Amino acid sequence: MTEVSPPHEIAHLARVELFSPKPAETVEFFTKFLGMYISHQEGQSVYLRGYEDPYQWSLKVTEAAQAGMGHAALRASSAEALERRAKSLSADTSAEGRWHEDEFGYGKNYRYLSPDGHVLDLVWEAEHYQAPAELQSKILTRASKKPLQGIPVKRIDHLNLMSSDVTAVKESFQRHLGFRTTERVVDGDVEIGAWMSSNILGHEVATMKDMTGGHGKLHHVAFFYGNAQHNIDAAEMFRDYDIPIEAGPDTHGITQGQFLYVFEPGGNRIELFGEPGYLHLQPDLETKTWLMSDIDTGLAIGGAKLPWETYFTYGTPNPLSVEEHQKEFSTFGPAAQAAEEAIPDPIEESSAVANAPTDERIESVLESVDN
Amino acid sequence: MTEVSPPHEIAHLARVELFSPKPAETVEFFTKFLGMYISHQEGQSVYLRGYEDPYQWSLKVTEAAQAGMGHAALRASSAEALERRAKSLSADTSAEGRWHEDEFGYGKNYRYLSPDGHVLDLVWEAEHYQAPAELQSKILTRASKKPLQGIPVKRIDHLNLMSSDVTAVKESFQRHLGFRTTERVVDGDVEIGAWMSSNILGHEVATMKDMTGGHGKLHHVAFFYGNAQHNIDAAEMFRDYDIPIEAGPDTHGITQGQFLYVFEPGGNRIELFGEPGYLHLQPDLETKTWLMSDIDTGLAIGGAKLPWETYFTYGTPNPLSVEEHQKEFSTFGPAAQAAEEAIPDPIEESSAVANAPTDERIESVLESVDN
Amino acid sequence: MTEVSPPHEIAHLARVELFSPKPAETVEFFTKFLGMYISHQEGQSVYLRGYEDPYQWSLKVTEAAQAGMGHAALRASSAEALERRAKSLSADTSAEGRWHEDEFGYGKNYRYLSPDGHVLDLVWEAEHYQAPAELQSKILTRASKKPLQGIPVKRIDHLNLMSSDVTAVKESFQRHLGFRTTERVVDGDVEIGAWMSSNILGHEVATMKDMTGGHGKLHHVAFFYGNAQHNIDAAEMFRDYDIPIEAGPDTHGITQGQFLYVFEPGGNRIELFGEPGYLHLQPDLETKTWLMSDIDTGLAIGGAKLPWETYFTYGTPNPLSVEEHQKEFSTFGPAAQAAEEAIPDPIEESSAVANAPTDERIESVLESVDN
Amino acid sequence: MTEVSPPHEIAHLARVELFSPKPAETVEFFTKFLGMYISHQEGQSVYLRGYEDPYQWSLKVTEAAQAGMGHAALRASSAEALERRAKSLSADTSAEGRWHEDEFGYGKNYRYLSPDGHVLDLVWEAEHYQAPAELQSKILTRASKKPLQGIPVKRIDHLNLMSSDVTAVKESFQRHLGFRTTERVVDGDVEIGAWMSSNILGHEVATMKDMTGGHGKLHHVAFFYGNAQHNIDAAEMFRDYDIPIEAGPDTHGITQGQFLYVFEPGGNRIELFGEPGYLHLQPDLETKTWLMSDIDTGLAIGGAKLPWETYFTYGTPNPLSVEEHQKEFSTFGPAAQAAEEAIPDPIEESSAVANAPTDERIESVLESVDN
Repeated sequence: MTEVSPPHEIAHLARVELFSPKPAETVEFFTKFLGMYISHQEGQSVYLRGYEDPYQWSLKVTEAAQAGMGHAALRASSAEALERRAKSLSADTSAEGRWHEDEFGYGKNYRYLSPDGHVLDLVWEAEHYQAPAELQSKILTRASKKPLQGIPVKRIDHLNLMSSDVTAVKESFQRHLGFRTTERVVDGDVEIGAWMSSNILGHEVATMKDMTGGHGKLHHVAFFYGNAQHNIDAAEMFRDYDIPIEAGPDTHGITQGQFLYVFEPGGNRIELFGEPGYLHLQPDLETKTWLMSDIDTGLAIGGAKLPWETYFTYGTPNPLSVEEHQKEFSTFGPAAQAAEEAIPDPIEESSAVANAPTDERIESVLESVDN
Repeated sequence: MTEVSPPHEIAHLARVELFSPKPAETVEFFTKFLGMYISHQEGQSVYLRGYEDPYQWSLKVTEAAQAGMGHAALRASSAEALERRAKSLSADTSAEGRWHEDEFGYGKNYRYLSPDGHVLDLVWEAEHYQAPAELQSKILTRASKKPLQGIPVKRIDHLNLMSSDVTAVKESFQRHLGFRTTERVVDGDVEIGAWMSSNILGHEVATMKDMTGGHGKLHHVAFFYGNAQHNIDAAEMFRDYDIPIEAGPDTHGITQGQFLYVFEPGGNRIELFGEPGYLHLQPDLETKTWLMSDIDTGLAIGGAKLPWETYFTYGTPNPLSVEEHQKEFSTFGPAAQAAEEAIPDPIEESSAVANAPTDERIESVLESVDN
Repeated sequence: MTEVSPPHEIAHLARVELFSPKPAETVEFFTKFLGMYISHQEGQSVYLRGYEDPYQWSLKVTEAAQAGMGHAALRASSAEALERRAKSLSADTSAEGRWHEDEFGYGKNYRYLSPDGHVLDLVWEAEHYQAPAELQSKILTRASKKPLQGIPVKRIDHLNLMSSDVTAVKESFQRHLGFRTTERVVDGDVEIGAWMSSNILGHEVATMKDMTGGHGKLHHVAFFYGNAQHNIDAAEMFRDYDIPIEAGPDTHGITQGQFLYVFEPGGNRIELFGEPGYLHLQPDLETKTWLMSDIDTGLAIGGAKLPWETYFTYGTPNPLSVEEHQKEFSTFGPAAQAAEEAIPDPIEESSAVANAPTDERIESVLESVDN
Repeated sequence: MTEVSPPHEIAHLARVELFSPKPAETVEFFTKFLGMYISHQEGQSVYLRGYEDPYQWSLKVTEAAQAGMGHAALRASSAEALERRAKSLSADTSAEGRWHEDEFGYGKNYRYLSPDGHVLDLVWEAEHYQAPAELQSKILTRASKKPLQGIPVKRIDHLNLMSSDVTAVKESFQRHLGFRTTERVVDGDVEIGAWMSSNILGHEVATMKDMTGGHGKLHHVAFFYGNAQHNIDAAEMFRDYDIPIEAGPDTHGITQGQFLYVFEPGGNRIELFGEPGYLHLQPDLETKTWLMSDIDTGLAIGGAKLPWETYFTYGTPNPLSVEEHQKEFSTFGPAAQAAEEAIPDPIEESSAVANAPTDERIESVLESVDN
């Protein structure tokens, strides 16, 4: 039985750091297309924020040899909550962390590793962004004017972590941070996905099984639009300006979140999030469990197909580029075959998955070729 | 200095009871146009729910001589939170209440009066709705299938109470229920509106000054669509099926909520709520204060005009029907004149208000007629 | 060189007759989900119209052993234009037709066969629908009130015919009916798709190559919503009410039309059409030719994947049900293999196509299995 | 009885020239906010196009002492149609015009005056815009990439002319250009508005009665978005960037067109046009006539209120600025009073009109002041 922390200790996802081997192009992606403001530059890092992000930055792009998540930070609900959460983590030898004050615009952070190795910070002190006069909005809840560039995102939304052990990661968020699990996907007895939140959102952190056996990778970071049309507009923009679209716009049954997945030039998967999905207002919500028999609707309410060769197998960091990975995993090399064995049959056979090499398909190809 | 309760003690607005002198037509309004399901009938009351409302009902329509709000109920975050909130209220002689178990599908309720006389319940025990097989949705977070009738609302969203003393009502919610005030409107030193929440929503309860000097009236109950197009579709439906539209679709600057206001046949104002507006994720939010100089944007981001003769003066119960009130207040009878004196000049002069009898207008009419 | 008739002789697509082996369920599909009105019943046929269809009916559902298109009718721009078009067709021995007056609500029709065998009518006399008082809309251009049932379509939009010879069908519409070809797709020298119109719409009739070698089949009939959100709403409705979604919502690059493809219970593919796509206002438009190198964007602007085993191979009538066809064509039986050879490699390899058995895939499966 | 030209002789509205006393700000309005491309500069004029406008320009901004329409040009369907239309106009002494070749990117134009004095060109020769490589879109029907600036309009949509005699202007378009009148508004026997088209659009040219007795003014030019959300986005942008919003977003019953009206810095009224409204596909459409009893729905389907002091009285050129006019007409000066007498009572009393000084209102003010 998992011990669970009190709820509401964590307020929300405040920021994420992305590594990029092409930092200039990654920054251009977020500014030119997604209308994010640059609020700071320092060393090999550029700090950005959406026009409704409340703090100095929600995204830090740092030059690195490989794509991936540098770290992500959750903001506690109070200074005391931060101390309590750090204490809880410290008592867990596997999660022991350290305090640092290395992030611009934020005070002291407690840094630790998820059970799968993802770098996570907890923080309380956060400097609120104050717009200069020319960027002040007439709308008082808006931290800065909506820019006139690209299809601007409002703010950071959520994080999806690939994990070798979904249950371990989920339990760490529950036990130490007081998250509740709103939805999960099981393949028989094995959890292969979990969506978690510390407020009424369907998820601020999710974790999905790394079918390729990797550890501590990033599946995606999501930024918030709040409506369906902006996802449609963004898809058209990405298409015409050569940003590869992986899937969407469509809506996941899981969370009811509207998705559009693309790869930023550095190789990280970015989600644009349309309508916010189901809000869990009731305090005694029961975790919804998706069985493999429901997985079609869970993956997509419309007709979208999530590509087997990337969506279920690609995270960052990754030894291959998106294109190389895609090729490798669509042509059944050794890595692809390992994944093929690991991915549950119902996912491979789901009508919401494209290009999965199901056994039936392999066999029938053989037969048709034999004739 | 106002003493404030801990946050998160109240989870959300669970239900509201509307009185109607035309109950059959009121129920038809919610079922035929807004696709609500009838879940129960008892005595002079019909119980309804939207397809994503989690409990047995979120709306009870009760036959009565006049329109108005029978009561509204907030659900506590736990049984203990309910006890703590009841205790806090009991200690306040003006808010002393009583326990009752009179509401179908809910357990014991603590009933008390707001400082202005609105009937409010707090409740913890709430029976979760279980859909019969034919109404079960493939989307696991959806309590029942989206119906095929009208333009269906998902769930109850928020409540707006007209008050003779906005500050008193606001402070009661803060002190006893731990609500935070996300936004407010002031006319000089006087608060004339406050928007409050116990979670990240911009408001689950708001209160606006009753300019006509009334007490304890309902301004409106809002039901949630979650997107802009449904507000547009609903406006067209209401137009063609003879439901009077007061204002919208447009977006308030206050809360960034998309609104459409109509009057149900019984006379209560109902809001259809498009996109959910700004979500207050940051735990240390500062209340945003709208001054009279900003009131245009606060009232409407687009070009909508809120009618002086209803929006700022009409609540339920009301001695007049909507049509009679509208006529009375557009023709400067004694009641209208009282309101005219009470409503701040900047609201009357706002380009987001229609038909207000500003001094300038009155004078110029006189002049032009004299010539 | 193809001789071309004067433009504007044909006004628009007026109606289509669908055959269904499950007529009651097909009618229920159009009434319950798409809010069409039944305007007449006669023999084995039910006649329906969308709320903005101007005539007595735009859709006739007729009981038949197999799904398919009974006929489609284009309305001429005048009585004289009808005579001229009939004369032009009569002069073409392969298209010779006959006059009949067999369609309820329409006068005399000239019936002929497309070069591929599709049954087509031309008609001038059409009875305008007059709504009874209770169905009259306040919006004067609206032939009847928008119903409160399902997600109602406004009207019929366009027709897509599968053809063994796309060029022949295209030239027949150009030569005899004065259609202009707005866009086409070529695979080297072979036209595999053409989109045609007699007004400023991107297409009222399209034809795509039947990769399975069939003749005279229907690919789909489209009904018009006019906005993107209704396609999203419809996808959710179809998902939850067990209507199979083939692809979408997304937007074709070709025509810029927003699509959602589903199969009605009788087996015919139905498109729900969101925003109307590009309007060809300029009178001297040049036909846009999509090369195989552009086909990804042509098929879908977003990330939608059109399934190889249905979208490129399934039309009606069909000896197999949708499910049987899907299985047959996903498992590389003889029929599937014939199609596999006929479909251009770039379409099979397009990232906008799901599950196509490309050579590379077949080979790599072999290799991976050999190891 | 009015003689009528053959239909389809005019293809569409190709371009408009706006005069502006603040040309730099006017150009900035169209480029910065509406994402129009500058395609040419010459003399005191700047030439612009939306990203789907097919020709070199659809909008020319020319410096002038007062706002207003320099001219508008309709493109004929062929060289012969242009000759025929010019001949028809020349035969009408009141409309006699002259040929000129003074417009960049277009060949010879036939310039004449509408019966009310609006300057109109007919043209056939139009240079199609060819995008440089970096602006070429993957979507073949798109003349150039959608820009990443502001909320970009696709193309010019329609023109609304204020006229002292609506019927005369309407008949000129019918008689000489073959337009059909899709809808009109009558006040008893007097036509006060007419919407006309030469294709299936609800209108490319409309004319409304100038209630202030003026001649040959521009009411507005409209640019096309094609969906509702962009109108909502644009309203928010205009609000936050200090562009005055007159009315909308909402939908007119007349044409079913979605509107948002703003004033560009030079003083001309600009409409942003959402969904395209009703398409008149049927060739024998009957003109729909709106009576004063229906005018509420005609003006707005939702709750929008069109301001009496601008919408029904302000056109360009205008001796007053928008702000001055608004003040003058809201304070019942002599000009306002003249308008007040000219505007039909049902319009003044419509719930879709804001601030009209109805007799009842004036009287009641007097009474209330007398007491």
